[in-house]
Amino acid sequence: VNVRKIQVVQNVLESSEALAGENRRRMDEANVLCVNLLSAPGSGKTTLLQQLLPSLGARRCAVLVGDLQTSRDAERLDGLGAQVVQINTGRGCHLSPGEVARGLAALDLAGLSFVFVENVGNMVCPAAFDLGEHLRVVLLSTPEGDDKVAKYPTLFQSAAAIVLNKTDLAELLGFRREQVREDLAQVNTAAPLFETAAREGQGIEALAEWLRQKRGAKDAPEGGMPEPNAEN
Amino acid sequence: VNVRKIQVVQNVLESSEALAGENRRRMDEANVLCVNLLSAPGSGKTTLLQQLLPSLGARRCAVLVGDLQTSRDAERLDGLGAQVVQINTGRGCHLSPGEVARGLAALDLAGLSFVFVENVGNMVCPAAFDLGEHLRVVLLSTPEGDDKVAKYPTLFQSAAAIVLNKTDLAELLGFRREQVREDLAQVNTAAPLFETAAREGQGIEALAEWLRQKRGAKDAPEGGMPEPNAEN
Repeated sequence: VNVRKIQVVQNVLESSEALAGENRRRMDEANVLCVNLLSAPGSGKTTLLQQLLPSLGARRCAVLVGDLQTSRDAERLDGLGAQVVQINTGRGCHLSPGEVARGLAALDLAGLSFVFVENVGNMVCPAAFDLGEHLRVVLLSTPEGDDKVAKYPTLFQSAAAIVLNKTDLAELLGFRREQVREDLAQVNTAAPLFETAAREGQGIEALAEWLRQKRGAKDAPEGGMPEPNAEN
Repeated sequence: VNVRKIQVVQNVLESSEALAGENRRRMDEANVLCVNLLSAPGSGKTTLLQQLLPSLGARRCAVLVGDLQTSRDAERLDGLGAQVVQINTGRGCHLSPGEVARGLAALDLAGLSFVFVENVGNMVCPAAFDLGEHLRVVLLSTPEGDDKVAKYPTLFQSAAAIVLNKTDLAELLGFRREQVREDLAQVNTAAPLFETAAREGQGIEALAEWLRQKRGAKDAPEGGMPEPNAEN
């Protein structure tokens, strides 16, 4: 009985990995860089995208927006010129590679350079699932507190880049950047740390430039395709 | 094979429910009100408790603090006079009734009136697990945005009371209370909405008084023990 139970679990995981690999292959063929955006609820993923898409050229971008309910985030991103697909997970605590595959099927990948996957707001479960992205960008906003890297190390460990958002509130809230840097030194020394105040449009360009370089690296014939989270 | 798989899942759920029921029974016998505190990461659960415990009488309170890693929250609550137990879930996205049972075993329930369970910061998974609490208090902080009730309805549906925290930032952030009220009207009309700025010590007394009344209701001979989330 135990053996059979384990067998079932393995099959599910294998199928999840296979779907993620298939997603990545599709985007590799289309020469698209896929970025999985992860954070707690309300860290500013959608606001960041509202600023980032115009900077990258919105028509070169698509967004798959994951939420349990509502299409509010997709509506906020509508009208910028990017392709936007809302995925509702119901009670699901993270996007799955199957949901991303269905989202990709709804996109016209030709002419795209970036596909952003805005994951469900959750610092735990999404970290465990490869969706077929090329890299992960993890957001932390200052009102959440400066202890979050230490408390959710797995998430920050998997990040190719980390964005500290809502820095306009840092001083008011007594947010200690040095605590974040100290905790990051324990879990992820490779990922660059960008500071943004997305609502104020601050700090966007440095992140956009980093993403352009990552996308450019996909074109380089000698480099080949980057592995997911290769920075770690 | 399918039948066996379903059987295994049912057994796990039954065992989880049985453990939750056992936790509740233990606290009923000790005449303790158990409050499950749920929110996104960084909404201010620990800061709220730092204010609430002295108001309720810290020596009458215990806290089981759930986090993936670190004992930072327990350390923040240490020294107030309450019994505090840190539970590290590792990669677990929510507290389980088994973890709460082990936490309760580490407490001296005699003389206690309140056991607070500070769940893992997560708006999705903890909502699905009865830990044996008598009621749930769900926090939402203004920097998370006024769209969270609509996006995480299951969580807010299960709340006996809702706390809007960090109201000192509401005006600065353009937080629309009417959006929250409108969304709550769709999912939970029974739960009172308390407004707090826990860091500033504002709004604590009304919540403390509500909790005292809920605890008092446990003593009333005619009322019997409240059902979990009886307000819904």
